[in-house]
Amino acid sequence: MSDRLTIALDAMGGDQAPRMVLRGANLARKRHPQVEFLVFGREQDVQPYLSKLKKLRQVTTLVHCDDVVSDSEKPSTALRNGRNSSMRQAIQAVRDGKADGVVSAGNTGALMAMSKMVLKMLPGIDRPAIASFFPTQVGESVMLDLGANVQCDAQNLVDFAILGNAFSRTVLGTMEPSYGLLNVGAEERKGHEALWEARDRLKELELPGRFHGFIEGDDIAKGTVDVIVTDGFTGNVALKAAEGTAKLISSYLRSTFKSSIFAQLGYLLARRAMQKLRKRTDPRRYNGAMFLGLNGIAVKSHGGTDPVGFANAIGVAVDLARGGFLDRIRADLGQLDRTAGPARNGNSSAQAVAG
Amino acid sequence: MSDRLTIALDAMGGDQAPRMVLRGANLARKRHPQVEFLVFGREQDVQPYLSKLKKLRQVTTLVHCDDVVSDSEKPSTALRNGRNSSMRQAIQAVRDGKADGVVSAGNTGALMAMSKMVLKMLPGIDRPAIASFFPTQVGESVMLDLGANVQCDAQNLVDFAILGNAFSRTVLGTMEPSYGLLNVGAEERKGHEALWEARDRLKELELPGRFHGFIEGDDIAKGTVDVIVTDGFTGNVALKAAEGTAKLISSYLRSTFKSSIFAQLGYLLARRAMQKLRKRTDPRRYNGAMFLGLNGIAVKSHGGTDPVGFANAIGVAVDLARGGFLDRIRADLGQLDRTAGPARNGNSSAQAVAG
Repeated sequence: MSDRLTIALDAMGGDQAPRMVLRGANLARKRHPQVEFLVFGREQDVQPYLSKLKKLRQVTTLVHCDDVVSDSEKPSTALRNGRNSSMRQAIQAVRDGKADGVVSAGNTGALMAMSKMVLKMLPGIDRPAIASFFPTQVGESVMLDLGANVQCDAQNLVDFAILGNAFSRTVLGTMEPSYGLLNVGAEERKGHEALWEARDRLKELELPGRFHGFIEGDDIAKGTVDVIVTDGFTGNVALKAAEGTAKLISSYLRSTFKSSIFAQLGYLLARRAMQKLRKRTDPRRYNGAMFLGLNGIAVKSHGGTDPVGFANAIGVAVDLARGGFLDRIRADLGQLDRTAGPARNGNSSAQAVAG
Repeated sequence: MSDRLTIALDAMGGDQAPRMVLRGANLARKRHPQVEFLVFGREQDVQPYLSKLKKLRQVTTLVHCDDVVSDSEKPSTALRNGRNSSMRQAIQAVRDGKADGVVSAGNTGALMAMSKMVLKMLPGIDRPAIASFFPTQVGESVMLDLGANVQCDAQNLVDFAILGNAFSRTVLGTMEPSYGLLNVGAEERKGHEALWEARDRLKELELPGRFHGFIEGDDIAKGTVDVIVTDGFTGNVALKAAEGTAKLISSYLRSTFKSSIFAQLGYLLARRAMQKLRKRTDPRRYNGAMFLGLNGIAVKSHGGTDPVGFANAIGVAVDLARGGFLDRIRADLGQLDRTAGPARNGNSSAQAVAG
């Protein structure tokens, strides 16, 4: 791979698409001068925005697609009918080696199903997982799965640990990552059987870094481990519970600073520091959920994001591609020689969570 | 029941017991002048603190118990060996009609197992659930289960909805509570089968108030519903993820106000408002988890709390007793005529989460 990277963008996904997507690409262009874009979308909708962004135009190829996958579309319908959609074409560009990764802010379930069908899974991995960064007391952690797999068996959890571990080493640069299984207590027999079995297998596997065993919900923000492994149901609820709490405290804080003239003056004095805090806790900073386990790089942006958030999602794809995540995980999977492991559970009724 | 209430206290539970328990009782005495206390514990340990609190002594009867249930004890061991423990004796006081409710900051699993054995379940309810208040954008909600039942079937979830609904009407004073099932999306087929079945049954049951269907993790802090129903695994993780996030933002805020001289001055000006905010988000305010579904009132205080937090847990027991929660829920269960419902699942492998 040369220093240059190409990122495929689904211009039609997201509440404010395609304008938000193109403006986001333009911001990402400034941050990542080595990146070129392959933009997929309806020419008549995309061209008016692209033509206004002269510098972006110079590094962008627009590919016309007739169809758009709507947010309400079922993944199965999108798979059948969406062959000419911007989403599908963008994913195919990755499969065909024309792009190093794809970013879409469209229908999560459809993006997951299409990515799985077009890019296929990495050898030995059953299901893709959705992963994202979390801010913590000590830096950043990654958590997976955040909603791709509502029910998981022990082997799925082990796979997620392998994926998260490789991710942490390539993108977070943590060469000896600590990793743990999210549970309701640290003791031996807390939780359910899949967790106990996953713990026993992870103890045997000895991935790089340190296996912490079980962690609890408050360990996420504490930063107790670099990689938090959980099923998609629990991960999704934990992520959204944390987001809801952050919003609640922000609204408390706003009303606090409006509650008296002294508080208002205090806010004015502390304004610059507060702006830094706002920047630090800006949810756009953590936009860009990665689909790990696929034989290719696919990143899902939040549908309601703005250009700043979308540019961050592009940044995630760039980091994955530049860090050589796929090569690393392929090497890891080869070394683990998992073909010798227990027979795989054939159940793949993965159910994606539409964001 | 006269206006006077008696609360049984396990003086030996909690990191700072028995001092913390007695000081907490003394604070609660000031807030609830109609309450008397039955305090269970080792006389030689309790008496030195009680003798210093003259006014508390006037409304307190100390009952000596030789044994103490330790935090590390397994619930099964505590059941076998803890007959003369302060915890067991305090629970028995409720069963024998000597107290209107019991409060303990001791071993959660043991307290749950003993309460279930001694107080028994309400007719038609299979398992107790742990419930607690949550602050929201619009006030307060109650969530259950928070960890008593790691795996739940549809009927357990329905039972939790019935319990939470009665609770909301008696203690929160919300006569038409809204209630919802915690899931990973609002759509018909999100999540797993137990949730779909519970939703269908709740639609038929038509409890007082409004059934909202499925809610998501961010709806907890939004206050979308008054009663959040979930299994103990998900509820425990969501609760702790929210607590962890709140602590993370507090620590960000502290470092923000220290980051420059202007921010420090700003803090000084806004100090009174910030103190109100701190009061509002004080975790001690939400101390006191209720064990619902039992034929008696039992409240678990956080083991690491201080007298202020313990007094709040006592307040929760007082509110439950005074609000007539047990009468209300018995009337509800009678009206529902659940004996005509589907056969109960006999699986009661409830597993308590030690707090």
